[in-house]
Amino acid sequence: ADAAAGKAKSGVCAACHGVDGNSMVPMYPKLAGQHPAYLEAALKAYRDGQRTGGNAAIMAPMAKTLSDADIADLAAYFNSQAHK
Amino acid sequence: ADAAAGKAKSGVCAACHGVDGNSMVPMYPKLAGQHPAYLEAALKAYRDGQRTGGNAAIMAPMAKTLSDADIADLAAYFNSQAHK
Repeated sequence: ADAAAGKAKSGVCAACHGVDGNSMVPMYPKLAGQHPAYLEAALKAYRDGQRTGGNAAIMAPMAKTLSDADIADLAAYFNSQAHK
Repeated sequence: ADAAAGKAKSGVCAACHGVDGNSMVPMYPKLAGQHPAYLEAALKAYRDGQRTGGNAAIMAPMAKTLSDADIADLAAYFNSQAHK
């Protein structure tokens, strides 16, 4: 996976999760330093309709536009950010 | 919420997420330092069947046994742990 490519695609994520994945909004999870495998699984669950509660209404449409490669790159990017 | 009470109830969580919430298993998310509001929303989504993919098969039965107070305490506990 390519964290730099992930950063380039992370603009829309930054609105809620913060540019470096350290969300300042309690309802939105911090992504910085999270395991990439988990981030990928979560994004795919949103994309594939396996998460319907909570933030799914926001996340599902976002995730639908992402390819597996996009998801791997985004996961690599946010994992590479320091958790604050 | 009571982080100490959360710690007392976190034994079963520690198996996958680590005693301090810094999971060493890529598939299981790190909980340490995560926003409590997000942790609560995620646990309730598992409890209420709104998450079915990925780790839901493990998490749903765990979450079903938890009251709202348990969930708030667990979220407070893991939030209080330093992310590593």
